[in-house]
Amino acid sequence: MSTAVSPLAPATVPALPPIGGVRLATAAAGIRYKNRTDVLLALFDKGTAVAGVFTRSKCPSAAVDWCRAVLKGGEARALVVNSGNANAFTGKTGKQATTLTAAIAARAAATSPGKVFLASTGVIGEPLDATKFNGVLDDLAARAAPDGWLDAAKAIMTTDTFPKVATATVKLGKAKVTINGMAKGAGMIAPDMATMLSFVFTDAPLSSAVLQSLLKAGVADTFNAVTIDGDTSTSDTLLAFATGAAKDAPRITRAGDPRLKAFAKAFHGVLADLAEQVARDGEGARKLVEVMVEGATSDRSARRIALSIANSPLVKTAIAGEDANWGRVVMAVGKAGEPADRDRLAISFNGIRVAHRGARDPSYDEAQVSALMKQPKITIKVGIGLGKGRDRVLTCDLTKEYVAINGDYRS
Amino acid sequence: MSTAVSPLAPATVPALPPIGGVRLATAAAGIRYKNRTDVLLALFDKGTAVAGVFTRSKCPSAAVDWCRAVLKGGEARALVVNSGNANAFTGKTGKQATTLTAAIAARAAATSPGKVFLASTGVIGEPLDATKFNGVLDDLAARAAPDGWLDAAKAIMTTDTFPKVATATVKLGKAKVTINGMAKGAGMIAPDMATMLSFVFTDAPLSSAVLQSLLKAGVADTFNAVTIDGDTSTSDTLLAFATGAAKDAPRITRAGDPRLKAFAKAFHGVLADLAEQVARDGEGARKLVEVMVEGATSDRSARRIALSIANSPLVKTAIAGEDANWGRVVMAVGKAGEPADRDRLAISFNGIRVAHRGARDPSYDEAQVSALMKQPKITIKVGIGLGKGRDRVLTCDLTKEYVAINGDYRS
Repeated sequence: MSTAVSPLAPATVPALPPIGGVRLATAAAGIRYKNRTDVLLALFDKGTAVAGVFTRSKCPSAAVDWCRAVLKGGEARALVVNSGNANAFTGKTGKQATTLTAAIAARAAATSPGKVFLASTGVIGEPLDATKFNGVLDDLAARAAPDGWLDAAKAIMTTDTFPKVATATVKLGKAKVTINGMAKGAGMIAPDMATMLSFVFTDAPLSSAVLQSLLKAGVADTFNAVTIDGDTSTSDTLLAFATGAAKDAPRITRAGDPRLKAFAKAFHGVLADLAEQVARDGEGARKLVEVMVEGATSDRSARRIALSIANSPLVKTAIAGEDANWGRVVMAVGKAGEPADRDRLAISFNGIRVAHRGARDPSYDEAQVSALMKQPKITIKVGIGLGKGRDRVLTCDLTKEYVAINGDYRS
Repeated sequence: MSTAVSPLAPATVPALPPIGGVRLATAAAGIRYKNRTDVLLALFDKGTAVAGVFTRSKCPSAAVDWCRAVLKGGEARALVVNSGNANAFTGKTGKQATTLTAAIAARAAATSPGKVFLASTGVIGEPLDATKFNGVLDDLAARAAPDGWLDAAKAIMTTDTFPKVATATVKLGKAKVTINGMAKGAGMIAPDMATMLSFVFTDAPLSSAVLQSLLKAGVADTFNAVTIDGDTSTSDTLLAFATGAAKDAPRITRAGDPRLKAFAKAFHGVLADLAEQVARDGEGARKLVEVMVEGATSDRSARRIALSIANSPLVKTAIAGEDANWGRVVMAVGKAGEPADRDRLAISFNGIRVAHRGARDPSYDEAQVSALMKQPKITIKVGIGLGKGRDRVLTCDLTKEYVAINGDYRS
């Protein structure tokens, strides 16, 4: 398996500033990997609001079950993330492991287990030995500090080829507040691995209901609009924490509060940045692919058509082969099951229209199109011509390297 | 691109006997390929009943539109199939091409265009020059003969690595009747290609309504239960022709006629045989994969779960890597969106149970399972444990060769 950094990795990594009320520490607990960190502990000041969205899988991991249950309390004092073992499909043992981990973390953080959030990523089906956290979490709690964001992003990686972080500073009322985020994920992920995890932190004083509303609105066109291989993890977890340490900022308790507007935009920007980084680190990816659909009968219909295109192995292999194969795009539109009229379709690649009104564009210039298909980012734009529904989905190409990462790992 | 025959091809090819009322001829019309046949003409005696099922794509080919329209007449006198050009997404020109082809064929067969059926397979989006059929179809009509079934199956191939034929003889009343079938298809199919085509012929005297009913019932667990890459062609066409030449057989005009029972079973067997051959010729396939789901809340739910597993790139690459990666099967069950309870799931590979009740099987023996994963056919059986719904889907593994066939064709 290649360990080279994805050619689509962002050129620069932003420095993440401290966030009042958040302290971090990482350790190498030896859960699966050697010579690398695999546990992250984040501690939050009293009164930190929390919100979360999770995988839609009907077979979620034990950690997802745990978070869903404790989320009802609305307050977080600690987050424990481990890589190397997803604690998924581990039955009763898995449930016991979450209970034990939360108990150890609660003791270390001097709080109750109901305020401890958990996320696990790695092998599915292997029991997670939570006793490994004994001692480790106490030590982490003692060392936790306001910096070390990049180290934290590294500790949660599995087969990611680069750590994914994003940050934004924005005004809330007259105060300046900060949003930091990190993510991991590169598909449903190699050797037995599962999971897209993301954590977002802010010092803005938001209620958990407001945070939940921002998260729900924010994922729709970011994390929920990214697909690497159409395979949904058992462990997808996105948690947001608002410490309220920005004392000069107004406390926001209503999602409709007009003072929230700039913050909501910045928060959304952090999610979008992280989601795009996940697509850029898609297993074996050599091209970032943006699928834009417009003119569908509804936004929901546009999403389904966009996902049908973005998940089509034939569209993805054509892009890997640098071919503007619009016939396969037509195929993917046709199979989506959504209203579409062949004779109204228009398709363009990176701004060059290749097909319209049910046939090849008369001005189609193969040499011109071939040249633009060599670019690292390909935008496929499809006009359905029936209504005003529109949507956008990010994905990557499908290369032999994807098959190698996911099929050759035993050799 | 490899031109080697799939290692999963059937060891022997059956000899197809003549069918009264059917005559065949093939020619090299130079539509796209050099040095190979690319047109098939089948002629039928007067009174031949016809039935058909087609792609569910919202962007069907011009030939599919044509067949749907003329099918209402219920009688067929000629079938014209060409490979090399799918006549799909060709706009008005495509419609004109079907009208012209049918007119040429009708003249050659001394019938009316409304009794001519058309199927095209090959490149999407390139105009089909129907004038190429001028002369060619007259010559074919003059040469048409009761044999040449294997030649016919070869003429309709695109990137198939072997011709697909099947035959059955069965009693209808006291008479012996014959069913011959052929198919082509290897995925949504390589360099720009589209299509799964299949044609089934019998001398049994069946009404078109009975034939349609047999076809509709027959495809559900055969052609509709095969997936190579989840990509639905714009041109999928399955046509059945019943000449009624078996004069001693009773004429069947009701689908519920008890005399039809043995015939229906044999007819279904031919469809199942052809459908399995399509899976065995899946692009880049090295393993035939059978996904069996039982204990779902309904058969429909079982089908959705089975397709979710069969279309999962991660399940398919794991099988290519000869790994019994049941974690990925859990993932695929979870993402299907159908009722499933992690703690009731049971999963086996080729009869060896690897997981049950939400965790790894305690008796799991990795060496034993690794050995069986080397077999050319892998059966994944999943018990959902919630009800009595069951289904079966065929697919193949996902190899680097698939990506090469579909991505490297420009080099």
